[in-house]
Amino acid sequence: MPKIVRFHETGNAYVLRIEELPLSEPKEGEVRLKVEAIGLNRAEIMFRQGMYLETPEFPSRIGYEAAGTVDAIGPGTSGIQIGDRVSTIPSFSVGRYGVYGESAIVPIHAVARYPETLSVVEGAAIWMQYVTAFGALIEYGRLKKEDAVLITAASSSVGLAAIQITKSIGAMAVATTRGMDKKQALLDAGADHVIVTDKEDMAAKMMALTDGKGADILFDPVAGPFLEKLARAAGAGARIFEYGALSPSPTPFPLFDALSKGLTVRGYTLFEIVANPGALTRSKQFVYDGLGSGTLKPVIARTFKLEEITEAHRYMESNQQIGKIVVTV
Amino acid sequence: MPKIVRFHETGNAYVLRIEELPLSEPKEGEVRLKVEAIGLNRAEIMFRQGMYLETPEFPSRIGYEAAGTVDAIGPGTSGIQIGDRVSTIPSFSVGRYGVYGESAIVPIHAVARYPETLSVVEGAAIWMQYVTAFGALIEYGRLKKEDAVLITAASSSVGLAAIQITKSIGAMAVATTRGMDKKQALLDAGADHVIVTDKEDMAAKMMALTDGKGADILFDPVAGPFLEKLARAAGAGARIFEYGALSPSPTPFPLFDALSKGLTVRGYTLFEIVANPGALTRSKQFVYDGLGSGTLKPVIARTFKLEEITEAHRYMESNQQIGKIVVTV
Repeated sequence: MPKIVRFHETGNAYVLRIEELPLSEPKEGEVRLKVEAIGLNRAEIMFRQGMYLETPEFPSRIGYEAAGTVDAIGPGTSGIQIGDRVSTIPSFSVGRYGVYGESAIVPIHAVARYPETLSVVEGAAIWMQYVTAFGALIEYGRLKKEDAVLITAASSSVGLAAIQITKSIGAMAVATTRGMDKKQALLDAGADHVIVTDKEDMAAKMMALTDGKGADILFDPVAGPFLEKLARAAGAGARIFEYGALSPSPTPFPLFDALSKGLTVRGYTLFEIVANPGALTRSKQFVYDGLGSGTLKPVIARTFKLEEITEAHRYMESNQQIGKIVVTV
Repeated sequence: MPKIVRFHETGNAYVLRIEELPLSEPKEGEVRLKVEAIGLNRAEIMFRQGMYLETPEFPSRIGYEAAGTVDAIGPGTSGIQIGDRVSTIPSFSVGRYGVYGESAIVPIHAVARYPETLSVVEGAAIWMQYVTAFGALIEYGRLKKEDAVLITAASSSVGLAAIQITKSIGAMAVATTRGMDKKQALLDAGADHVIVTDKEDMAAKMMALTDGKGADILFDPVAGPFLEKLARAAGAGARIFEYGALSPSPTPFPLFDALSKGLTVRGYTLFEIVANPGALTRSKQFVYDGLGSGTLKPVIARTFKLEEITEAHRYMESNQQIGKIVVTV
């Protein structure tokens, strides 16, 4: 029987359990994967804590991103064959379809092939990060090469994806990080400039880097009181994309800056893109083109074994990583 | 010597003084108006109180909107003749160029003719209200006839302009007002539905009116904790335009609703439109077309004489009016 990760109550990383469960069969519109690698996401930590957009029903599976091989196909599916090498695009209930484990069933629309040139570990580190950043920067943000983009929490997989996408357009990528320890790694990852927020005034430095113009697009998963600092670093007409809620504090809306600069603050998740067939097709093509040309290249922070799933979650919570944490199966 | 309204300190309506001052001559790029009517705006009350985007330098003039006759032209101006019947588009410093008084000097770009069919009182009630609503609903909001628009503080001149513009596109206009007393007047002014916020649950009623879809565009000058209620009344992908700061309280950003519905909250003022020549041309054409066809028609709440400028400000602060308060000169 395959090993499956489930949890029976919300809480810290120790609520995750590895259980042996009967192999399930895919139903109408579903396919089954033999999972080879699992990409971890902050969303799963919030789901495990009971602080996510979706609330778990116990016992609950968990997990959005896996790479593996199709080993069973349900009725009413087409375009995918047994033996195909695919990874999953987060576009399903993370509790009902969670992919942490040796076997996972997902809706057919959520699987996509990934380039032969990528390892299976890299295959599990594509869709969440690139589709999330694509949706904000390209689909909605209409990023132009003259633009300056401020990317916060930049060492996360989505942050690094945003740096790569910004540079692929030829725009300026300014990354933020809290301490000095990750500064060089962010420059190495392609950021034009790095602002160390514990030591530097973010707004003043962003203005200096742009001849007083400020950021055109700001891409942030933190929210909380940090939004007011983002508004000060923003230029006239700037768009601030809030794609997460990492701050435990309430988020004051920066009304005065918004009125005087004409700022837009937009709540955003990749689910808007994956629910929109046109946008999803555009995002997949953008990602395939970028992976093919090498402008997009997943950064793997560290791998763990399935038996170490708790340690893998705890490592993500430690915020030491630069890039994607992947669990091999 | 012409009578001019100035103030020498911030404060309540009694700081406004009527002073006789020497007639000024227009400089390069400026024209002078013999003022016949003055349209009052909430922005001027906030400026008088020292709570506006612009801070007064004393003694300060005040006022954005006047209708009158051109009686002097500075060098470097073209397209406007002495004797032209014009009104002013707010696109200048309200302190330096303020139009309250018998004579006003404004930049040439800020004057526009208005239709012969309108009285001079109506001429002073065009540009602030229609350009403000046009910019949010049409220029940025791309309002479509399938959309539902929630218009708060709907009895204000800008609110009524938004109702008229919404109806001119064929979209649904839902107006809010605090008490029952203005409900019928808002229906008479063209609102499809009125929500009385002191008695009704705004989000529940908005959802009921739209088969559970929610508002597509929300147009609000209040902000403060009211923004969280707006977010609950908003549909997926809705855009909330905040064009004022009437609430004295801080404005919490509705992060959870913004993430789950993909909401946009945009700070907005008409100054974005008037500073953009293309958008200004489009807005003027839209307003001329609407005034010509009768889909747009200024609503005048009450007129005062110039000597009653303090009473006129106090009347605006009483929130009894439905439509524009105009001072005749």
